[in-house]
Order: sequence, then C-alpha cells, then structure tokens
Amino acid sequence: MKIDGREYRALWQEGQTIKFIDQRKLPYFFEIFTASTVDDVAYAIKEMVVRGAPAIGAAAAYGMALGQKNPETSADLLRSTRPTAHDLFYAIDYMTQAIDYRQNVFDAAATYAETIITHCKKIGENGEKVIKDSMRILTHCNAGALATIDYGTALAPLRIAHQKQKKIFVYADETRPRLQGLLTAWELYHEGIPHVLITDNAAGYFMRKKDIDLVIVGADRIAKNGDFANKIGTYEKAVVAKENHIPFYVAAPVSTFDPKLRDGSQIIIEERGRQEITEICGKTIMPEWVSVKNPAFDVTPKKYVTGFITEEGICKK
Amino acid sequence: MKIDGREYRALWQEGQTIKFIDQRKLPYFFEIFTASTVDDVAYAIKEMVVRGAPAIGAAAAYGMALGQKNPETSADLLRSTRPTAHDLFYAIDYMTQAIDYRQNVFDAAATYAETIITHCKKIGENGEKVIKDSMRILTHCNAGALATIDYGTALAPLRIAHQKQKKIFVYADETRPRLQGLLTAWELYHEGIPHVLITDNAAGYFMRKKDIDLVIVGADRIAKNGDFANKIGTYEKAVVAKENHIPFYVAAPVSTFDPKLRDGSQIIIEERGRQEITEICGKTIMPEWVSVKNPAFDVTPKKYVTGFITEEGICKK
Repeated sequence: MKIDGREYRALWQEGQTIKFIDQRKLPYFFEIFTASTVDDVAYAIKEMVVRGAPAIGAAAAYGMALGQKNPETSADLLRSTRPTAHDLFYAIDYMTQAIDYRQNVFDAAATYAETIITHCKKIGENGEKVIKDSMRILTHCNAGALATIDYGTALAPLRIAHQKQKKIFVYADETRPRLQGLLTAWELYHEGIPHVLITDNAAGYFMRKKDIDLVIVGADRIAKNGDFANKIGTYEKAVVAKENHIPFYVAAPVSTFDPKLRDGSQIIIEERGRQEITEICGKTIMPEWVSVKNPAFDVTPKKYVTGFITEEGICKK
Repeated sequence: MKIDGREYRALWQEGQTIKFIDQRKLPYFFEIFTASTVDDVAYAIKEMVVRGAPAIGAAAAYGMALGQKNPETSADLLRSTRPTAHDLFYAIDYMTQAIDYRQNVFDAAATYAETIITHCKKIGENGEKVIKDSMRILTHCNAGALATIDYGTALAPLRIAHQKQKKIFVYADETRPRLQGLLTAWELYHEGIPHVLITDNAAGYFMRKKDIDLVIVGADRIAKNGDFANKIGTYEKAVVAKENHIPFYVAAPVSTFDPKLRDGSQIIIEERGRQEITEICGKTIMPEWVSVKNPAFDVTPKKYVTGFITEEGICKK
C-alpha cells in the first residue's frame, strides 16, 4: 500500500526485527512499532498494534521465527494472545512444522506472508473485472491492506482498478462501533482514490438515490452453502443493495470458506464488551446506566450475494 | 414523562418564566434552564436547549408570550433561530394572532402546548393497540417526550403499553451521527421500560434473529402518497423490517402530513455539517483530512409502511 507516496506493508522483516504499522495510532498518527523478540510480537497482537486475521497470522509466523530457540514456549505465548483467531493457530502450526523440518524459519515466515499477499493481489485482479469505469462503490468495515499485509480483500479490486486508471469513487461506511471505516478512508486517502466516509445509516440513502453502483465487502467466514459472516451491519447493506438491484460481492481468499459449516446458522456470533459502544478514542461517550448489546458480526444469507471474489476467480454459485 | 419518579415535561411555565429540561446536558446531567425573556427563549431554541419540532413550536409560543410588549421584534428574533423549522413559524403566527385579538398570551401559549400533548397522548392510546404483550420493539432516533413536550410520537404507544402493564422490551438504535438514541434510552430508563441501546448496524441482526416483533418510528414530514421523511437510517430499517416480515409503523400527528407534497421525491434532504460526524460530545474523533457526507434525513417509500399512527386513529392506506 502507498503511504505518503512510499510502498508499505502492514508488517515486514528488517534484519532481526519485525516492523509493524502501529494500527492503534491510526488514522491519527503514522508510527512504526518494532518487535525484536517473540514477546514483542505477542504484545503487538494482543494490544492490536496489528489487526485483521491474515495480518495476525503473518505476525505470529514472524513471532515464531524470533522465538525459534524455544518453539513450544513461543507457540504457547502467541496462542494466548487472541484465543479465537483461526489464522493465528494455523500460522503457529505451519511454523512449528518448519522448525521441526529445520527449514530457515525467517524464510518460512516470509513464504507464509508472501502467500497471503499473492492471494490478495489475485483477488484484486479478479475483482477488478466487475468494476466498470466511473463506478461508485460502497464498502463496509476495513478489509484493506492493513488487515492482510498488503492489497486487502474488498479493497484489492479497488486498488487494481485505480492502478488501471479506471475512475472510481468509494463510499466507506464508518462501521460503528469500532469505526474501522476510518482505516479504509486512511488507505484510500493515501492511495489517492476518491472517496467519502458516511455514517452506517446513510448507506441506504445513497443506494436508493442511485449514487452507489456496486458493493464489495470482505468476509470472516463463509459456510458451505454460501452464507457468510462479516462485520456487524453487512447484512443490512446486503438486503438494501438487493432491494435496489445493486450487485453485492464478497471478496475473500479460498481459506475463508469453511466446509465444516453447513450454513450460516452454524456460525456463532461473538457478543463483545460494552466499551466498544460507550467509548470512542478512549473517551466515554455514554453514561454508566446505558445498557447495550454489541454483536460484533452478522450472517448474510447467500441469496443476497452476487458473487464471491477469490484468488481463483469469481464464483457466482 | 417520569424522571426520578416525578412527572416532567420538556418545557413548562412557572410564574413569569419558562423552564426547560436542558437537552444539551442529557443524558449526562439533568438540569433545568430558566428563560425569563424572549431573548432567553431564542437562545434556548438556537443552542438546542430544546429540540424536536413540536417542542420548538411550544417554546416559540411561550417566547412570544414573554415578548408580548414587542410582538414584531419578538417574532423576528424567534424566526431567526432555526430558519427551516415549520412548527416554529406556525407557532409564531398563532401567537401573533392571539396578541392581535388581545387574548391572554400565556393562556394562548398553554393552549398551543396542551394541544400537542393531547395529540401525542392520543397517538399513544391508538398505537398501544398494535402492541401485544411480550413484544420486542425497535425504534430509531428520539421521537420521545423530549421532542414533543410529553409522551412523544413513536414512544407514546410504548409508554401507554407500559402503563397498561403490557410487558415490552425496546431496542433503541443509537442513531449516528448525533446519537439521539441516547435520549430515547434516557427516557425509557426513567420510565422503567426495559430496553437496550444498539448500534445502527445491529438492528438488522436482531431483526433476522427474530428478536424484534415490531418497529415504530416518528416522521418529520409525510407526503400525500404516504412516503415519509425521517432521521437518516430509517429507510434501511424499513427495508430490512419488510424483508423479515416485521410490521413497521410510523407515529406522527396529522399536522405532519403535507398535502402539498405529491410524493417523497419532492422532499428536499438537508445535508449537514461534517462536525456532526467527526465530533462526539465536543471531542474530535476523526482527523482533518477525512472527507464526509452527512445527509440528515432519508425518505422511506409508502410500500414499507404497515400503518400510520395518528391522534385520529391508525391509517393503513
């Protein structure tokens, strides 16, 4: 991704250290966090210096490389950081095997990271084909380079379309409660892609006004039948898009498809803490007596999806 | 409305002064603002001590009473406070006539306010009939007593149902950007009506999960054909409610129907300032470079409306 005209990734190796764009400071300050030990990497994952399942996986892979002298302790430590992150466990297992087979561990971690980036770039190239010149595209949450090391999933087709000089305009939902839309706006701003941030409530207004031609979102998990889980609010956007005959695409690597899940009803939705709603930027915005419910994801049934954009192509079935 | 067990109104006369619940301080602090002159009332309207078209109208009526010695100057001053508020102009004309006819001006203002309250109570009694025991009801924004002196429009049926000991549970959308859902939560909290505040993104999730049986919202303006304008996000909720076969009611006094508007396409939507999105509680939550669009209302077509609840009954046509 471009930041101030220079190419960056969400994280990268530099000598015997791993550098991270410190996502806790975004979009206010652009700062680099340096990890010299596996403990530093564990801290970075736990404290959300890095976020997004693919980027967390890559961070864990590099963490295992830094902690290669004590692989079991390193694995235990990294596993404890975000106990529900599937990519994290996968990366740790992958690296444990590399260590067992006496591969160069930094090379193995780099391969792990490069595979993610290659998939995202391919998602971008495949997805770019559904973007016509002058299209106005809505996205929800941040399925960008920050979450996937580079390119992103939902944002990859937009990046490639922009590189190919297609004229596009992006509507980014702010995505309450955590306002990840600000990260999307930050990426688009630095990439020079024309865009605007809107409240989640306004997406339907712009769809009905025919100001939006296409919706692209990411996915956290996709069931066998095509139902998928993504950030809370995705379901509403999908229903309103269908009502307004606007194509609705889901961009995700093949690894997001979970054949063990028959349909969306088997996806368990995490309810998260009240602070996500009652605090913004560390400031309390709601009184103590306010009672809230905070489901973090929702499930969108397959019938609202025009197609899935993966590294292998576009799947409309 | 009940607050800490005592009956209150959004504003009321006390001797030669007008008292207001200071809505700028809500839901954090409950404070009373006292207006002794028409200038004080103009300040209260302009600075949003009082908000909601019906309550603003009543404030203006009392303002004219306080400024009765210079009716023209008072009218000009009050008109300048919120230049697009229809109820404000109507109340000023009503009071100018009362002054011309040498009526007791405080009595005239009280009559104006009482009429609003009577209509809202009747909306509550009519709307209560669609609320069955154990229903879970979604509402958007604050169409409550704070906006209408007492009872509210969308909240009136909930109040009456609760008074009649029906067991109800309310989901209140937080309603970004201005978070008026907090005012709804504050009213429900003090009324002892079980409820929870959710992000606007989560409403669809709860609808699909069959946790919501009914939606009731207010309206700012209703066209001849039944299309209506209300707070941004109302349209999305209406579409998702229909998709999930959930009845969707609009509660508003007959005066909200505007026979001069053929349909919703004739309603002009106000785009408001960026600060409403980029600041919360006076704190900046987004960097300077973030560009935003902030439509304040949207139009929901008639086909999504199950019925209009007015003081005259429920209209399903």
